[in-house]
Amino acid sequence: MNQPLGHHYIGGARSGAGDTLLHSLDAMTGEPLPGVFHQATAAEVDAAARAAEAAYPAFRALSAERRAEFLDAIATELDALGEAFIATVCRETALPPARIQGERARTSGQLRLFAGVLRRGDFHGARIDRALPQRQPLPRPDLRQCQLGIGPVAVFGASNFPLAFSTAGGDTAAALAAGCPVVFKAHSGHMATSEWVADAILRAATQTGMPAGVFNLIFGSGVGEGLVRHPAIQAVGFTGSLKGGRALCDLAAARKQPIPVFAEMSSINPVILLPAALAARGEQLAGELAASVTLGCGQFCTNPGLVIGIRSAAFSTFVERFAARMADQAAQTMLNAGTLASYAHGLARLHAHPGIRHLAGQSQQGNQARPQLFQADARLLLEGDELLQEEVFGPATVLVEVADLAQLQQALASLQGQLTATLIAEPEDLAVAAQLVPLLERNAGRLLLNGYPTGVEVCDAMVHGGPYPATSDARGTSVGSLAIARFLRPVCYQNYPDALLPDALKNANPLGIARLVDGVTTREALG
Amino acid sequence: MNQPLGHHYIGGARSGAGDTLLHSLDAMTGEPLPGVFHQATAAEVDAAARAAEAAYPAFRALSAERRAEFLDAIATELDALGEAFIATVCRETALPPARIQGERARTSGQLRLFAGVLRRGDFHGARIDRALPQRQPLPRPDLRQCQLGIGPVAVFGASNFPLAFSTAGGDTAAALAAGCPVVFKAHSGHMATSEWVADAILRAATQTGMPAGVFNLIFGSGVGEGLVRHPAIQAVGFTGSLKGGRALCDLAAARKQPIPVFAEMSSINPVILLPAALAARGEQLAGELAASVTLGCGQFCTNPGLVIGIRSAAFSTFVERFAARMADQAAQTMLNAGTLASYAHGLARLHAHPGIRHLAGQSQQGNQARPQLFQADARLLLEGDELLQEEVFGPATVLVEVADLAQLQQALASLQGQLTATLIAEPEDLAVAAQLVPLLERNAGRLLLNGYPTGVEVCDAMVHGGPYPATSDARGTSVGSLAIARFLRPVCYQNYPDALLPDALKNANPLGIARLVDGVTTREALG
Repeated sequence: MNQPLGHHYIGGARSGAGDTLLHSLDAMTGEPLPGVFHQATAAEVDAAARAAEAAYPAFRALSAERRAEFLDAIATELDALGEAFIATVCRETALPPARIQGERARTSGQLRLFAGVLRRGDFHGARIDRALPQRQPLPRPDLRQCQLGIGPVAVFGASNFPLAFSTAGGDTAAALAAGCPVVFKAHSGHMATSEWVADAILRAATQTGMPAGVFNLIFGSGVGEGLVRHPAIQAVGFTGSLKGGRALCDLAAARKQPIPVFAEMSSINPVILLPAALAARGEQLAGELAASVTLGCGQFCTNPGLVIGIRSAAFSTFVERFAARMADQAAQTMLNAGTLASYAHGLARLHAHPGIRHLAGQSQQGNQARPQLFQADARLLLEGDELLQEEVFGPATVLVEVADLAQLQQALASLQGQLTATLIAEPEDLAVAAQLVPLLERNAGRLLLNGYPTGVEVCDAMVHGGPYPATSDARGTSVGSLAIARFLRPVCYQNYPDALLPDALKNANPLGIARLVDGVTTREALG
Repeated sequence: MNQPLGHHYIGGARSGAGDTLLHSLDAMTGEPLPGVFHQATAAEVDAAARAAEAAYPAFRALSAERRAEFLDAIATELDALGEAFIATVCRETALPPARIQGERARTSGQLRLFAGVLRRGDFHGARIDRALPQRQPLPRPDLRQCQLGIGPVAVFGASNFPLAFSTAGGDTAAALAAGCPVVFKAHSGHMATSEWVADAILRAATQTGMPAGVFNLIFGSGVGEGLVRHPAIQAVGFTGSLKGGRALCDLAAARKQPIPVFAEMSSINPVILLPAALAARGEQLAGELAASVTLGCGQFCTNPGLVIGIRSAAFSTFVERFAARMADQAAQTMLNAGTLASYAHGLARLHAHPGIRHLAGQSQQGNQARPQLFQADARLLLEGDELLQEEVFGPATVLVEVADLAQLQQALASLQGQLTATLIAEPEDLAVAAQLVPLLERNAGRLLLNGYPTGVEVCDAMVHGGPYPATSDARGTSVGSLAIARFLRPVCYQNYPDALLPDALKNANPLGIARLVDGVTTREALG
C-alpha cells in the first residue's frame, strides 16, 4: 500500500462520502503527498460515534483476556509494518527513521503493557463487603464493586508523536483496554500514517474477533466538534495545544450530559539548577541542557522551556556556557508548516517583551526552526506574566535568575501547572531541594532529579499529567498503566447472585485476581 | 450552647462581618428559631478559601496517621454531642430523633471508616518501577508514584441528611482524609446544626494539632458562586438538586483553571418487578415498596421514583394492591417549606401530563406531604419524556407497565443515569434478569437484587454515584471509601533519593503498605 485510500473506518467498513478532499503534505518540502483524504461529513461523524456505541455492549462484555489478545494483536501488526510505512511516517513528519522505529517500539510496547494490565487484573478494582445478616441495628447486604468501561471514547492524536500519541497511541490503548470503543480523529499532519495504523488495528480486530465498530477513524478538519458533542461519546482523550484542548473541554462541559475530557496541553517544564550542581558540573549541564532543549527539534510536551538558577558567579558562568552551546545547535525541520509558523510567532512575542533578552540563536527565518535562548527578569515569573507561562513549542528555552532561595520559592509558587519539574542537584543541594519539593508537588505531575524530562517511560509508576494547563484534569495520566483509570467507572452490585456478577466479583474468583474483601486484600475464593 | 453564634469559621477564628442576617426556621412551624446567622461577605468567602489554601501545605504534609487521628477525634466529638444537639437537628429538619441518632452514628462511622482507609494505606496508590541501568537501548530511571490531595475543596451539604451528607459528612470526611482542607457552605435548612458540627470539628482540630484553616464554615445564600470561582479551590463536592449542581459544574468549567465538580443530583431509581417475583409475593412487594417510597417522607436520593412491570394479570393485581397501600400512607412533614413547595410543583406537573394517570393519594394541600402514586404510559419512557426522567423529591412514585421483555429493554435503554437500579426477582426470573443487567450497568452506579435502594451502606464496595444526571461524574462515589479518590491526584518521582520521597515510596516501606513494585504487589522493603 503506497497510496492511501483516504476513507474513514466506520463500523469496520470504509466510507468516503464527503466532497471535501484533503492532502497530506511532505513535511520537508510542503508538497502534497500521493493520495487524497475525504473530509468526514456530519453524517459520517454521527455514524462513527454510533458504530462505537453499537460495539460497546459486546466489546465491554468480552473478558479482559480477550481484550488483551486484541491489544497484543495490534502490537504485532504494528511491529510487522515494513519500510514503506516508516518512510510514510518520515515523509509526513520530517522525523528521522530511527526515531520512528523507536517510537513504533514504544507504541507496541505500550499496547502490550495494557495487555499485561488486563491480565494482572488490578484495573478491575474488585472490592467485596460480604453480608452481615446478624449485624445490629440493621443487617449489611452483600456489596461488590468493580470498574467498568465508561463508554465510547473520542481520541484526538498529537502531531509530535505520530505513533505513540496518535492512532494506536496511549489514549486509544487505554480506552480499548478499559472496554471502551474508540472513534479516532486523525491528525491532519499525518493522515497517511493514521491510515496505515488503522489498517493494522482493523486487521487485529478481525483476527481476534472484535465487534465491528470497536475502532473507528475519521479524517477532516473541524470534525472534532461534532464528535465531542455526540451523545454516544462518553469521554475524550486529547493531546495538543492549550487552545484546542480548552475548546474541547468547553464543548464537553456545555453538553446536555457533560463528559470528562483528558486533554494534555501546555507545559514549560521548569528545570531548577541548584548551587552545588552548578559548581560541580556547570559545563556538563550546559551541554546536556542544550541537547535536551533541541532534542527532536524541541517538539516534546516535556521540553524544558524554563531554566531557573540562583544568582551566583557559577550561575553567570553557566549562562555564558549554555548560551554558547545553544548558539551551536543546528536548525531542524519541524513537523509541519503550521508548527514552524507557531514557533516563529512564539519567538516574536518573546523578542518583543521588554523584560526578556535574547541570549543566543540566529534570527528565525527559512524553513527550519533555529534554536533560541532567552533570559527573562525574575519579576515576570513572580508576577505570573502570561508570556513566561506559555509553552513555545520548539527548540527554545528561557533562563531566569532569581535572587535567592526565598525568591526561588516565590517563583515556583507562581508557576502554573506543569507536566514535569526538574531539580539538578548534588548531595549538598538536597537540604535546599527538600524546601522546594512541596512546591513542585503542587505544580507538576512528575518530579525529576538529575535527569531531563524529555523521556517519558511507559510503566506503572509514570505520571504524564499535572495541574491545569498542563492537562485539563490533574487526576489523570496519559502515559503509563494508570491511564486506563480515566476511562473506567465503579459499579456496585448489592445482593447479586454469582450468576449475574462479573467474573471479577464471583465467589470462586475465577480470574484469580487480588480483591479487597472485608477490608483485606486477598486472592482467596469466597466460601 | 442553645443559641448559635451565627458566625463563620475562617482559619480557626469566628467572623461575622456581614450585615445581612439569616434565620433558621423550625421545620414543623416555619417559625424562626433563636439566634441569627450572618451572611458571608465576598471578603469572608475569599478569606475562607485563602485560609484553606494556607492550611493546605501543612495539612497535606501530615502523615496519614495524623489525619486519621483528626477524623477519629471528629467522630468522638460528634458522638459526644448531647440531647440539645439532637433537638436542634430535629427542630431544623422535622426528622425524628431516632433517625438523627442513627444518622449521627452513620456519620461518625463514616469518619472512622476513612481513618481506617488512611491506616490501611491503599489510598496512597504506591507504585514503584525500579531503575534498570542496563536496559537496552536506553536505561530505565527509578520511577515512583503515589496519590496526593488535590488542594482545598469546597463542600455543599444536602438538606435531607443534615449530618451524613453535610458539615462532617461524606464529602468533608473524604476531602480531609485525602489531605485537602475544606470550606463548607452550610445549607440554609440546618444552619444551627452546621454550627454544632463545625464546633465539634474545630475542637477535634485543636486536640489533634491540625493547622488553622483545615476546616472552614460559611453561612449565606448565593455565597457558593464566589467559593467555586475562587482560584484557591481545587475541587467541589455537592449534594442537591440537578439545577443547583449543574450551575456549579458550569461555573467550575468556565473558570480560567477548570476544576472537577462531584455533584450528586437527580435519580429516579427504577425498580423492576419481574414476573415470578410478582406471582410469588406480589402482596408482600406492594407493602414493602409503599414503605420504601414513603420512608423518611421519600426524602432520599435513592427513593424509588419509577416502578416497572411487564403486563400480566399478576402485575395488574400488584398495581391494585400497591395503590391501596399507597392510599393508606400517612402525610408527613417535609424538611422545609421549600421542599414541600417543590414536591407540590412536581405533583402538579405529573397531574397535568396527559400520558400520566393518578392512581392513589389525597389531594396535596396543607403543611405536610401526602404520598402519591401515578401511572405513566410506557411510551413516555420509550420517548424519553423529560417529566418521567425527573426526580420528584418526596413520597411519590410512578408506575409503568411495559408490553413485554423487548419493550422493557427499550425502556431501560432510554433511561438517563441513575444512582441505583433494582430488580425484584425469584430464581426463575434470573434468565430474564441476565438480559437486563448490561442495560442497568450502563445506567446506574448501584444494582440491587431483591432489596430497596433507600439504605446506602458505608463501606469499601459502595458506589453512591452514577451517570449524569445522577451525578456530574460517573467515575466518582460520594459514599464509601472510594470517595477519597475524587480528591487525589497521582504524582511521579523520577530518580528521587529516599530523603526526598514521601514515606509511602521510601525504600524501607516505613508505612508497611502494599505497593506495586515492578508490576507485583508486595509489602516488602526494597533492597
